Amino acid sequence: MDKNMFASDNYSGVCPEAWQAMMVANDGYANSYGDDIWTAKACDALRDFFETDCQVFFAFNGTAANSLALASLCRSYHSIICHDMAHVETDECGAVEFFSNGTKVLLVGGDEGKIDPAAVTHTVERRSDIHYPKPKVLSITQATELGTVYSIDELQAVGELAKHHQLKLHMDGARFSNALATLGVPAAELTWKAGVDVLTFGGTKNGMPVGEAVVFFDKSLAEEFDYRCKQAGQLASKMRYLAAPWVGMLEQGTLLKNAAHANKCAKLLAEQLLNVDGVTLMHQVQANAVFVQMPETLVEALHAAGWHFYTFIGSGHARFMCSWQSKEDDILQFGTELKKLAASL
Amino acid sequence: MDKNMFASDNYSGVCPEAWQAMMVANDGYANSYGDDIWTAKACDALRDFFETDCQVFFAFNGTAANSLALASLCRSYHSIICHDMAHVETDECGAVEFFSNGTKVLLVGGDEGKIDPAAVTHTVERRSDIHYPKPKVLSITQATELGTVYSIDELQAVGELAKHHQLKLHMDGARFSNALATLGVPAAELTWKAGVDVLTFGGTKNGMPVGEAVVFFDKSLAEEFDYRCKQAGQLASKMRYLAAPWVGMLEQGTLLKNAAHANKCAKLLAEQLLNVDGVTLMHQVQANAVFVQMPETLVEALHAAGWHFYTFIGSGHARFMCSWQSKEDDILQFGTELKKLAASL
Amino acid sequence: MDKNMFASDNYSGVCPEAWQAMMVANDGYANSYGDDIWTAKACDALRDFFETDCQVFFAFNGTAANSLALASLCRSYHSIICHDMAHVETDECGAVEFFSNGTKVLLVGGDEGKIDPAAVTHTVERRSDIHYPKPKVLSITQATELGTVYSIDELQAVGELAKHHQLKLHMDGARFSNALATLGVPAAELTWKAGVDVLTFGGTKNGMPVGEAVVFFDKSLAEEFDYRCKQAGQLASKMRYLAAPWVGMLEQGTLLKNAAHANKCAKLLAEQLLNVDGVTLMHQVQANAVFVQMPETLVEALHAAGWHFYTFIGSGHARFMCSWQSKEDDILQFGTELKKLAASL
Amino acid sequence: MDKNMFASDNYSGVCPEAWQAMMVANDGYANSYGDDIWTAKACDALRDFFETDCQVFFAFNGTAANSLALASLCRSYHSIICHDMAHVETDECGAVEFFSNGTKVLLVGGDEGKIDPAAVTHTVERRSDIHYPKPKVLSITQATELGTVYSIDELQAVGELAKHHQLKLHMDGARFSNALATLGVPAAELTWKAGVDVLTFGGTKNGMPVGEAVVFFDKSLAEEFDYRCKQAGQLASKMRYLAAPWVGMLEQGTLLKNAAHANKCAKLLAEQLLNVDGVTLMHQVQANAVFVQMPETLVEALHAAGWHFYTFIGSGHARFMCSWQSKEDDILQFGTELKKLAASL
Repeated sequence: MDKNMFASDNYSGVCPEAWQAMMVANDGYANSYGDDIWTAKACDALRDFFETDCQVFFAFNGTAANSLALASLCRSYHSIICHDMAHVETDECGAVEFFSNGTKVLLVGGDEGKIDPAAVTHTVERRSDIHYPKPKVLSITQATELGTVYSIDELQAVGELAKHHQLKLHMDGARFSNALATLGVPAAELTWKAGVDVLTFGGTKNGMPVGEAVVFFDKSLAEEFDYRCKQAGQLASKMRYLAAPWVGMLEQGTLLKNAAHANKCAKLLAEQLLNVDGVTLMHQVQANAVFVQMPETLVEALHAAGWHFYTFIGSGHARFMCSWQSKEDDILQFGTELKKLAASL
Repeated sequence: MDKNMFASDNYSGVCPEAWQAMMVANDGYANSYGDDIWTAKACDALRDFFETDCQVFFAFNGTAANSLALASLCRSYHSIICHDMAHVETDECGAVEFFSNGTKVLLVGGDEGKIDPAAVTHTVERRSDIHYPKPKVLSITQATELGTVYSIDELQAVGELAKHHQLKLHMDGARFSNALATLGVPAAELTWKAGVDVLTFGGTKNGMPVGEAVVFFDKSLAEEFDYRCKQAGQLASKMRYLAAPWVGMLEQGTLLKNAAHANKCAKLLAEQLLNVDGVTLMHQVQANAVFVQMPETLVEALHAAGWHFYTFIGSGHARFMCSWQSKEDDILQFGTELKKLAASL
Repeated sequence: MDKNMFASDNYSGVCPEAWQAMMVANDGYANSYGDDIWTAKACDALRDFFETDCQVFFAFNGTAANSLALASLCRSYHSIICHDMAHVETDECGAVEFFSNGTKVLLVGGDEGKIDPAAVTHTVERRSDIHYPKPKVLSITQATELGTVYSIDELQAVGELAKHHQLKLHMDGARFSNALATLGVPAAELTWKAGVDVLTFGGTKNGMPVGEAVVFFDKSLAEEFDYRCKQAGQLASKMRYLAAPWVGMLEQGTLLKNAAHANKCAKLLAEQLLNVDGVTLMHQVQANAVFVQMPETLVEALHAAGWHFYTFIGSGHARFMCSWQSKEDDILQFGTELKKLAASL
Repeated sequence: MDKNMFASDNYSGVCPEAWQAMMVANDGYANSYGDDIWTAKACDALRDFFETDCQVFFAFNGTAANSLALASLCRSYHSIICHDMAHVETDECGAVEFFSNGTKVLLVGGDEGKIDPAAVTHTVERRSDIHYPKPKVLSITQATELGTVYSIDELQAVGELAKHHQLKLHMDGARFSNALATLGVPAAELTWKAGVDVLTFGGTKNGMPVGEAVVFFDKSLAEEFDYRCKQAGQLASKMRYLAAPWVGMLEQGTLLKNAAHANKCAKLLAEQLLNVDGVTLMHQVQANAVFVQMPETLVEALHAAGWHFYTFIGSGHARFMCSWQSKEDDILQFGTELKKLAASL
């Protein structure tokens, strides 16, 4: 049993369907810079998936996909509003500010990793002078960094909020598939039908090697985005290796299958964790993450036993992640080991 | 016969050895962000390859690798000197200026795509006032964009020139392996022993899917380069897929084997092209590119017959590229077709 | 009586001594871009003032002076720690992020507008991974935005804190003279002797038309700052008009005289305000600002009567500023009017 | 006689009319950040001057005015076309690239410092792929850096050229008044009637202390330019000192009077220079600059005699500038001294 398996969903490898598609795409020569059939197919598959004529680009990773999307929605003297736990704020080393040449990120709170609408309104309205950056974009994360999922109703409210304040709406969808699997509705419902202008759609955490999609539902916003990607070092020459996995995973429903599996594993893992005295759930388990509060001694004992998981939020708080690669047997076995460990303390 | 085969070396796929290494690396979980064994192995393999304790980073593509390396060597009010045909000038859409927040690229000429040392000196010396960006970096390309290769003597002269003017020396090595195969000397001779401070070492054009190495021979220059990569969207979460191909290709000598093959194919292709009346060589064939001048009618006839190759430099000028994937039989067959076409005009 | 007189210290004009110096400097031709005698004199006068061989530059305004100073202390993937009420955060429209190409500003709280040392330590220590910008600079404001002044002991503690965390120490001294007048010690005590690396020394709010000084006490940090200013549009061609006012105000002690006068007026104004029932002081009056809490009806009545002052912090909070131009008679007269107004409510 | 008087027009001081206006404006308190009556008056005066409802902003200097104007017309992946002698290219230390976060400046030649239209067309048309920045702006200088002036016909042709290629047209008018004085037509003819979208209108070289106007004839392009100025450190708090000189100089026709005087002095100076054997004119004298070729021995003798003038273009080339402050007597006296010097060689 690999004791890294709960550390992060990006510890997982490439799933068979993505791999197979890359292998097929590897045959012979292919036009470069996205002028190949795999990129065309992947874009079409995403348009089908979202049931709309959206504009699709591929960037190498989530940091770049988010930052370029956000930079395309604003100028340096604007600001972007997001949750204070948002990945673009906490884990991208100032990439948003860098790609946009100085756009300020304004933080709002909100339960369960979801933005508090009143806080957004306050942030938009408290200043209207030129001495402070003008809010221009609202960025939300679906599923959130805390493993929760905005409901359709919540999303629609967010969409209306953005519209009301004339903010463009960006969705960081590093784990969009997990949210989709949870809600069980068409992808359109979670995105353009709810007012999302641009989605960064993550593939890596769900079984691809590299390559996130940037999906513009408002196509006018995509103008010259190809130039932006190129200048920012995000145009792959051998694009087929970014695109083919999307084809492989969309054609066969693997995207949702993988996400559903990860979500299911997270629920199973939560059960195992909650089986232990003193362990409590910090957030609802609605995607592939489990956040628990556990005795600090147990955290230490798990770490001592070689288990790798993040405790970044504070003392006794622990995050466990599942992925397409998680195995139910492993989770059950971990549960057994955990109980034993806890009992021995 | 694929009529795209001479369009660019980035039209080629992933070579078997790189693929095999990725496949092995795909097994199970792996630490993310470069904290995995494949990245460690790849860095070690590169240190062995260069016979020195260099600092190694992986970026997704050449544009980013070049731009980040250059940005790390200067501030926005500095300037970078390069050949007017350099890729960083002609084909990266202002990426150098973007990543460095405004560093000016100053152009010098020079035969065969190699910088003219006197022009460099003139460029450094003609201004010393604060109204013009201060030259700080000299960037050369090896092999050059014109398919030629700086000799060891030429490189050493460039190294001394840079040192004399207190310029850092950057080498764009998108086709470094091709130069190495041509010169038949250890990689150290072409780099740090000649005064190169930082090399961007290309893998993609030589058989990898994605991922170029940035190699700092002066390790003090690498300080916080990891932060720079992260902020600029160039830190892969599943780094193993960028690193493993390097391991696969360095362990077995494939890197040089691929490059030598491409170079050999280019020579063969040049012979075929020169077999035709009115076709003349524009530059020496020292790497994997063949630049010829041919009758405009022949260019048109080839294009009409479906052959894809670039004619960007001007009327009648044509570039043909070979790669690890080129096949000698295909080249001979192309030669036959070409002669027939030329005869029919 | 001008009802704008308490709105801001930048509503005041140019004081006679600054004006006179400009007038003298206006005679005949002068070398441009700072190569003139007035700039030399102003730099020397500042070196005398600080009793050390500091490096001095002049920028047009405070936003630029702060931003350029901060940008020179860090790289885009670093971060700057400051108070959440700091001008660089609240009133410069993302200038710090813009000039530094994305450096993140991290906020800490603290009473009376002064940073809480424990919060600084927490901010430095809570993250040490490359996914979050590395703290590199501590920026404090003296006098603070709330009209308070760091004591010498407090400053020394801040200096040690910065040193302990290997942070460069920047001081926003838009109202540095006011702090100096309050503390009554040599300027050296408030700056380099307390560990300040760079000071942006404001002249505008204290009686000059335009032009703030950037003073590097650690001269190694000033390397190429002239290029930085030039590229950023902050090198005045007719520098004499920025420099001469400094000469005029330093030669004759006007700088401190003006500041002391403004401070004294603020105390007098505070007395007038506190004379009224329901008005309470929000912060100590240690410089030229008076922050009070007053009945919202009184705020409205004053505004209705044409008085201009800021209430930006929240309901019933009001800021009144004094300057070199404030007149004690006017303040007393305002006090009388205020009492009458309050009584009538 | 001041031997610096021909070095540059920015060696001159503030002219009486500008000074007087500042002095009047210095009376009492005034709203800050441009919300004062002097700024309102200056904007109105400029609208009258251009006979159109243009949008006007004031920046501190020409580098910033040009850079902000250009940045507002493009994105980082665009390019700006200008003459290879343009100030934005040769003397602003990469400011354009800095303020625009990487926009490339593409150079074209052309006689007498005026762009060659065919070269512009070639530059626009030679590339249309995403690997090279997309041309978006044409920037011309009027009067040019070589002291020549585009005629109305030439300007209209440039305007049509820009329109044809869908380029925005920017005019660097650091010496716009000199061109205006030469051509003797309304300012409208040289600007919006000829297709100019944005003008940076210089005041400093023509007798002001600091402060250039940015004039948007296409008002839609001025959207949020106030935020841009603020963020970039170009919003003066005591704006009255930038605005009042414009009022003073526009109200009384001083702007044109000063420029006409400088132009006349340049013609007189040219006569004196050409009086000497071996001295020849390099460019037509159409504004306030005189470019001559003179024996290197004469250059050296003049320098040895203490005369300050620039010889930056190459051996024996010398530039002499006149300004509002030049005195005809001084020029004649210089002529006499020059003849004597030349005779003695």
